[in-house]
Amino acid sequence: MLGATIEGDPSTMIDDLAGLDVAGPSALSFFANPKYEQLVYRTHAAAVLVSHAFSPKQSVPASLLRVEDPYLAFTQILEMVAAQMAETGTGVHASAVIETNAVVAEDAFVGAFAYVGPGAIIGPGARIYPHAYIGKGVVVGDNSHIFPHATIYHGCKIGKSCIVHAGTVVGADGFGFAPQADGSYRKIPQLGIVELADGVELGANSCIDRATTGKTYLKAGAKVDNLVQIAHNVEIGEHSVIAAQTGISGSTVLGKGVMVGGQAGFVGHISIADGTKVDAQSGVNKTIKEPGQAFRGSPIQPHRNQLKSELMFRKLVEMEERIRFLESVLQEKDLT
Amino acid sequence: MLGATIEGDPSTMIDDLAGLDVAGPSALSFFANPKYEQLVYRTHAAAVLVSHAFSPKQSVPASLLRVEDPYLAFTQILEMVAAQMAETGTGVHASAVIETNAVVAEDAFVGAFAYVGPGAIIGPGARIYPHAYIGKGVVVGDNSHIFPHATIYHGCKIGKSCIVHAGTVVGADGFGFAPQADGSYRKIPQLGIVELADGVELGANSCIDRATTGKTYLKAGAKVDNLVQIAHNVEIGEHSVIAAQTGISGSTVLGKGVMVGGQAGFVGHISIADGTKVDAQSGVNKTIKEPGQAFRGSPIQPHRNQLKSELMFRKLVEMEERIRFLESVLQEKDLT
Amino acid sequence: MLGATIEGDPSTMIDDLAGLDVAGPSALSFFANPKYEQLVYRTHAAAVLVSHAFSPKQSVPASLLRVEDPYLAFTQILEMVAAQMAETGTGVHASAVIETNAVVAEDAFVGAFAYVGPGAIIGPGARIYPHAYIGKGVVVGDNSHIFPHATIYHGCKIGKSCIVHAGTVVGADGFGFAPQADGSYRKIPQLGIVELADGVELGANSCIDRATTGKTYLKAGAKVDNLVQIAHNVEIGEHSVIAAQTGISGSTVLGKGVMVGGQAGFVGHISIADGTKVDAQSGVNKTIKEPGQAFRGSPIQPHRNQLKSELMFRKLVEMEERIRFLESVLQEKDLT
Repeated sequence: MLGATIEGDPSTMIDDLAGLDVAGPSALSFFANPKYEQLVYRTHAAAVLVSHAFSPKQSVPASLLRVEDPYLAFTQILEMVAAQMAETGTGVHASAVIETNAVVAEDAFVGAFAYVGPGAIIGPGARIYPHAYIGKGVVVGDNSHIFPHATIYHGCKIGKSCIVHAGTVVGADGFGFAPQADGSYRKIPQLGIVELADGVELGANSCIDRATTGKTYLKAGAKVDNLVQIAHNVEIGEHSVIAAQTGISGSTVLGKGVMVGGQAGFVGHISIADGTKVDAQSGVNKTIKEPGQAFRGSPIQPHRNQLKSELMFRKLVEMEERIRFLESVLQEKDLT
Repeated sequence: MLGATIEGDPSTMIDDLAGLDVAGPSALSFFANPKYEQLVYRTHAAAVLVSHAFSPKQSVPASLLRVEDPYLAFTQILEMVAAQMAETGTGVHASAVIETNAVVAEDAFVGAFAYVGPGAIIGPGARIYPHAYIGKGVVVGDNSHIFPHATIYHGCKIGKSCIVHAGTVVGADGFGFAPQADGSYRKIPQLGIVELADGVELGANSCIDRATTGKTYLKAGAKVDNLVQIAHNVEIGEHSVIAAQTGISGSTVLGKGVMVGGQAGFVGHISIADGTKVDAQSGVNKTIKEPGQAFRGSPIQPHRNQLKSELMFRKLVEMEERIRFLESVLQEKDLT
Repeated sequence: MLGATIEGDPSTMIDDLAGLDVAGPSALSFFANPKYEQLVYRTHAAAVLVSHAFSPKQSVPASLLRVEDPYLAFTQILEMVAAQMAETGTGVHASAVIETNAVVAEDAFVGAFAYVGPGAIIGPGARIYPHAYIGKGVVVGDNSHIFPHATIYHGCKIGKSCIVHAGTVVGADGFGFAPQADGSYRKIPQLGIVELADGVELGANSCIDRATTGKTYLKAGAKVDNLVQIAHNVEIGEHSVIAAQTGISGSTVLGKGVMVGGQAGFVGHISIADGTKVDAQSGVNKTIKEPGQAFRGSPIQPHRNQLKSELMFRKLVEMEERIRFLESVLQEKDLT
């Protein structure tokens, strides 16, 4: 099926998939990253997917399955298993509420206690899990999955083949308040929407705020992890990836293929060039114009500079002692 | 309606509201912040709200609507549109569960699958959206909105004209555990409540923990963004504003009009003076007594000092080289 | 009941429990931490639990209740009140959906709009609150509480006496994507589960991702606060405690009795020794082998070193001036 060459017992039965370090004696594993080569020699796996090029330096207890790309082959097996496990039921649960003028495609699924608001459209193959909330006029594209307790506020648009995990909120109000003379705040109504283009995945308990006017826009294939905050009028480019707990302030624009580590923050009203890489816990405080560069720190510096500054930071006490020594020498010699 | 003076075609039809940079040819925009003046000359908007004082340095393609305060005027227009779009239905959905002794005001709204616990009170004009959970004995004040999947635990009090966005949890247990001799922890019961005074707004997926005893208290007009953590027994002063993903540890007290950027953190048991400003990603580790000061960094310093330290941090490698040069000079001259 | 020795009026009526600083005239308070001794002399409490050893340096307005361990005694009183307030109803609400082959123990509670998926098992004494989602094949152990809007995805296992607070998501997909040649990402199916051992408590709106294969595993007695992110295949040791908004990246393993402050972050694929302490906002970027050590900073240093570096950081401007002065002296003396 994978076109693998087998070195070892071809009748070995596999009933588990696991990493090299935790695999048991009936598991299939894979070896792709050279960093983990030692694990190949110590694994308890029954069989390991390896590349044609791999030449063991020690004896390997497991059978070897040689393939072109072991990671891809392992992913394909995961996909086969996932396809078998996938929920496939269709239809609307008796307890679901479908409001007036909402349209649910015939082969879509709408689970128990799901709410589909007036005029909403649920496309073919879409799955609205139990407890999901689909607001007034929302469009959920073909084959998209909206998991339990996700909230899609009125008017937002979910593209095709999107995934919105449990508890994620799409389209709550942007955080906009005008300060008043008496110290109080006046709420700025948030009249825009959120649009997710095709193939966007949002993790669990993330928040994508609706725009003040216009739209907050996640372009095709963008991937967002859990507990991420994306503020009003932000734009995320195609195939950009944002790790957990990152926050992006209002009106900031990320280009294509941007990679952001966890717990990073972006100030508002800046733009980030295509292919930018931002490390975890960074604070991005300015526009980045040159594509493909890596940054780190809060506030950010180019990646290399920040690593050097961090190294020096750990030596600050020693640096201060060196300064003190120089001062004492000059003082001793009556030079100061 | 706005008392605007029109410069340009008074018959221009407007069907959209948008920022200067993204406005299309049928949009109304506004110009308030001098920083964005260049956008006025390049906008595609049909019309732009400007101040009486604005004197263009170039020709402006759009019609100009001169008003006293362009930002306020734009807000007022947003408010008019929002009022037209607002959901106004009242009554209790057939699927909602209203437990014994709960009281729902006649013109309140309780949506599908909403749960209103025993003895809870829903005030006039309040809106309990589908899937909201209102615990035992909770009071929701007049005209407050509780959005889908918000959870208000038993006994908590929501003032008048409050907004609690989707997925936010009010009144879960504070994180209190007593270490035991065997290394395990014993849960400290959390018997207090959360009280939101009038006009408080909570964003989506935030958490306000109930007090151990007494109350966690957000005073009138406080505004809290998404994914914010407010621990047990915290107090937030009137009209304080807390941006997304900030965390405030137990028993800390924020004064009035405090402004906190995103992803900031506060240790527990400290108090923060009125009007304090804290930048994003700061770590506030001590009581601040003097009102109206600005802080930054983790741990915080006064804002100016921190900016200077950050500048030096970026020059640390160079500083170390200067020290090394001084050392080499002294060594060469046999002074050390 | 507490075996307390009473100094003061034994007929004093108590109807409230509160901290020394906020206690009213009918409240019982406690004094355990010497840091707060001054509060004992100023409290308005009717009575204060103190240790047998406490010898007041000033007159104390309140009655004193002398006990072995005042904090423990106060906790015991909280527990007694909590037990009286606890919800005790059992049975399945008429509106709940229990799917085929699910088993709900006779004395378990399943609230309104709760969803219990096919083949799920709800153990004796367990409480599934309104709006909770229990996926296909999930096991919820005896006496565990699943609060409103919590989502337990298919196949996950919740031990005995666990607490999962509102909005928390257990078992959403890990964030795994394989980069493709065209810049897009291919989703890696996440086929593993999450397992919580006995006595685990999860705060509100946290996320524990399911494993790619195998399990994400929180061992007995681990305590997790609100808005925490725990990625796929992470392992958390017995009685480890993780404060709010912390994030732990994929495959990282925390030992026993680890204590993590709020907003800390851990990179993936590292392991952390038993009893490690990590301060708030730290960035843990490497394996920690020696048990019981304390760390701080981003990236982390040993706690003491980091505090010193932070002190120096605040003096960086002054350090630079000292270097400049040394340079000027040498230049003046024609030494450079």
